[in-house]
Amino acid sequence: MAYKVDLNSDLGESFGAWKMGSDADVLTFVSSANVACGFHAGDPLVMKATVKEAVKAGVAVGAHPSYPDLKGFGRRNMVCSPDELYADTLYQIGALRAFCEAEGIKLQHVKPHGAMYNSAAKKPEEAIALAQAVKDAGGGLILMGLAGSEFDKAAEKLGIPYAAEAFADRGYMNDGSLVPRKMEGAFVRDTEIAAQRVIRMVKEGVVEAIDGTTINLRPQSICLHGDSPSAVQMAKTLRTRLIEAGIDIVPLSKIV
Amino acid sequence: MAYKVDLNSDLGESFGAWKMGSDADVLTFVSSANVACGFHAGDPLVMKATVKEAVKAGVAVGAHPSYPDLKGFGRRNMVCSPDELYADTLYQIGALRAFCEAEGIKLQHVKPHGAMYNSAAKKPEEAIALAQAVKDAGGGLILMGLAGSEFDKAAEKLGIPYAAEAFADRGYMNDGSLVPRKMEGAFVRDTEIAAQRVIRMVKEGVVEAIDGTTINLRPQSICLHGDSPSAVQMAKTLRTRLIEAGIDIVPLSKIV
Amino acid sequence: MAYKVDLNSDLGESFGAWKMGSDADVLTFVSSANVACGFHAGDPLVMKATVKEAVKAGVAVGAHPSYPDLKGFGRRNMVCSPDELYADTLYQIGALRAFCEAEGIKLQHVKPHGAMYNSAAKKPEEAIALAQAVKDAGGGLILMGLAGSEFDKAAEKLGIPYAAEAFADRGYMNDGSLVPRKMEGAFVRDTEIAAQRVIRMVKEGVVEAIDGTTINLRPQSICLHGDSPSAVQMAKTLRTRLIEAGIDIVPLSKIV
Amino acid sequence: MAYKVDLNSDLGESFGAWKMGSDADVLTFVSSANVACGFHAGDPLVMKATVKEAVKAGVAVGAHPSYPDLKGFGRRNMVCSPDELYADTLYQIGALRAFCEAEGIKLQHVKPHGAMYNSAAKKPEEAIALAQAVKDAGGGLILMGLAGSEFDKAAEKLGIPYAAEAFADRGYMNDGSLVPRKMEGAFVRDTEIAAQRVIRMVKEGVVEAIDGTTINLRPQSICLHGDSPSAVQMAKTLRTRLIEAGIDIVPLSKIV
Repeated sequence: MAYKVDLNSDLGESFGAWKMGSDADVLTFVSSANVACGFHAGDPLVMKATVKEAVKAGVAVGAHPSYPDLKGFGRRNMVCSPDELYADTLYQIGALRAFCEAEGIKLQHVKPHGAMYNSAAKKPEEAIALAQAVKDAGGGLILMGLAGSEFDKAAEKLGIPYAAEAFADRGYMNDGSLVPRKMEGAFVRDTEIAAQRVIRMVKEGVVEAIDGTTINLRPQSICLHGDSPSAVQMAKTLRTRLIEAGIDIVPLSKIV
Repeated sequence: MAYKVDLNSDLGESFGAWKMGSDADVLTFVSSANVACGFHAGDPLVMKATVKEAVKAGVAVGAHPSYPDLKGFGRRNMVCSPDELYADTLYQIGALRAFCEAEGIKLQHVKPHGAMYNSAAKKPEEAIALAQAVKDAGGGLILMGLAGSEFDKAAEKLGIPYAAEAFADRGYMNDGSLVPRKMEGAFVRDTEIAAQRVIRMVKEGVVEAIDGTTINLRPQSICLHGDSPSAVQMAKTLRTRLIEAGIDIVPLSKIV
Repeated sequence: MAYKVDLNSDLGESFGAWKMGSDADVLTFVSSANVACGFHAGDPLVMKATVKEAVKAGVAVGAHPSYPDLKGFGRRNMVCSPDELYADTLYQIGALRAFCEAEGIKLQHVKPHGAMYNSAAKKPEEAIALAQAVKDAGGGLILMGLAGSEFDKAAEKLGIPYAAEAFADRGYMNDGSLVPRKMEGAFVRDTEIAAQRVIRMVKEGVVEAIDGTTINLRPQSICLHGDSPSAVQMAKTLRTRLIEAGIDIVPLSKIV
Repeated sequence: MAYKVDLNSDLGESFGAWKMGSDADVLTFVSSANVACGFHAGDPLVMKATVKEAVKAGVAVGAHPSYPDLKGFGRRNMVCSPDELYADTLYQIGALRAFCEAEGIKLQHVKPHGAMYNSAAKKPEEAIALAQAVKDAGGGLILMGLAGSEFDKAAEKLGIPYAAEAFADRGYMNDGSLVPRKMEGAFVRDTEIAAQRVIRMVKEGVVEAIDGTTINLRPQSICLHGDSPSAVQMAKTLRTRLIEAGIDIVPLSKIV
């Protein structure tokens, strides 16, 4: 059996006259791109250009919906009702999908952004609202969420395609949650160690938690960052190590 | 041969805590609704509710994209480039279409709103940009525009389904353009006269211009207003007269 | 000694083409108006018109700053940092104050709106951030906050003028907090009883809590609502009863 | 008599997570900064930080109000009514002024931004609306506008302090207007020539137009750009040449 995994990263985070990110670089190492939909970043012109570039690079496109918080880049917690979450997400999925259709590709997945993602990972009613939007949008869209979170359960409950993601550069608690950013062990900064951890996740379905125990974690996608030259370098190395280990890097649609 | 025409009106123009319009009334007399997409009015929750109500009333749904001008309700002229017009329109079409898909209906048409409509009616490059967005969105969407304007030409040039609309309550110049609002003869305020004019447009494909000449005007849709009790009353009477005259009121998709 | 109290209500909550509230009615019964500053409601034209009407009615003007959440009318909780709260509040105070200066009046007070108000009432670091913005804006602005909340402490700590407000139509717990909206006793719906309670607050500095105990509560201002005909009626009756009881209705600046 | 002139540049054009400009560099060569007020760029946190840095650098602060067009960076023409222009400008002046007051400085001037500036320079009713906002805001604010434009006349008509600005790097027509960007002679790219032209404007009150004629132009301020390393270099050289020529670089408030 061939091993395979998807590599995803956020893209299209410019807005109006403001540029952000190194999209061209990111497109060289990911297989799936999460494209901002205008609520935390991205505007229609940016979305159009981003989808076009992803297509040219052969990278699959997903929607990256957010709370409506441009000034806070979608990173501030907002208490939105499940109805609001559902409608905001459906809106953003549709908006991005139109650019995919104009480019002749299929929208592949939906990965909620920032504070919306973190909140729904822990709150069943929010995860259900987001999953329902993904389902109702139609087209067999894949929901992407934190492995071991409420996203897993919501996708299963609604019977929709689902991709669990893990982080190469983060430590895990023994219950499968991420080590909080302020705790020691939150980050795995050594690229080679990070690569070995990811290879083990993909091949064995486990990772070593911060307390030394081995926990189950079998992600379909690995989240990478492209927001700094060093992040890009780490992502490229990671990609190389995975391929050397006989793991195919493929878009989610070839896995889920 | 049976005569038929579509009646359209704007819908879903509430936003957040603010209510606008009498959507329930409007849905009793139109066959097609132009639904705001968030740029001049409408928010995701309003869009969801509006599409749901239209479906229940058996009214076809169209997107009503606008310049990004919430404070000005899309009524202020903005000089947007064709690229911006294209991307903004594609974005809004997609956003609304997702709500249609969630309700199991097909998005029927696209009618630009307010200042965007008025400007593109006169500027070929803007009409082309809007028509291209309608085309690229796919799904056989019908563009709706002012009869005799640049919209007609853009739709023909791009080979997309098109519906010309006329106004029951407006006078026409002998070149087919509307009598400017400040000129005498701009408005046809008598409902019975308005009804006779529309009946003639539909059956004979002509209307009497302000100077007494008879000009060609064969609209597929008639634009109605629902923003006041008297407008609702006029719309209902008009509908009745058309039916009495043997004209079927049907959604655009049954005409174009 | 003459008894006196201020009556305050929210005003200027229209936005663009959308109207809200009966400002003309509200101006007949309040002595201080909390004017929306564009973040949850109100736009520059609305702010200009509202200040003008308040001046004409002899009603003092305060700023009603909010979280940046137009779609949610500032009613959704957002986790903003103290720095963000400070800057957002200072911005809104300044914006409204310019309209006051154009009308030749002094901005009197600042009352945070909705979710921002509720959150800061319980969180010291948020109340301090808002109070600091009020202080740094200069001009001797009065902070208005919930009696017995973190607002009281923040104002005292920073040494700024402060007005505690109470609610005529709400029940109180024996610790001085409001009875939660879903609990029995949350609302005082009988206008005459509400009036007697307010009169006692003003004259004796006490109110009967939901458990029958008498607690200290000496508000400088009473919050009234004008969002429905019945609310307007209740507010007018309350005003009449206070005057009959020998209590002068005066703006905050004559009390604090 | 000592010669003196002000050097101005735009500042504080970051927004939320997006950075723009090299404000620290710009603050080393200007005497007055035009600070974005949130409508085209700048948010409250950015405004706070920008004012603080300007104060530290000893640079005077002005408001840089814009059309409400964040996505278009205020560069797109919008047809706003004089009432809208007035209210939008007053709002933005007030918002920025609050940050100045918190830092203990006086807001010095108001320079409209982008498309708002270009439009009002040609339309008397727009220039008057902007000038009226500057006047009504109080505090002796200086309006800054294009030399020889409708701004000059509006300021004179309303009797408010006024600073005409000129461009070091632009050619002039013989009627005092700028050579259109697409015409030959639109730009003066040689720094030394640009410096000589500015020195002549300041000392003699004239500049050579594109057709060789000498026209009157006596600016109180020179507009500089800081949006690229080469622009910063040109600005610094220009500053040096002016000082060598015995011209003092001082804030507007020392000239007007």
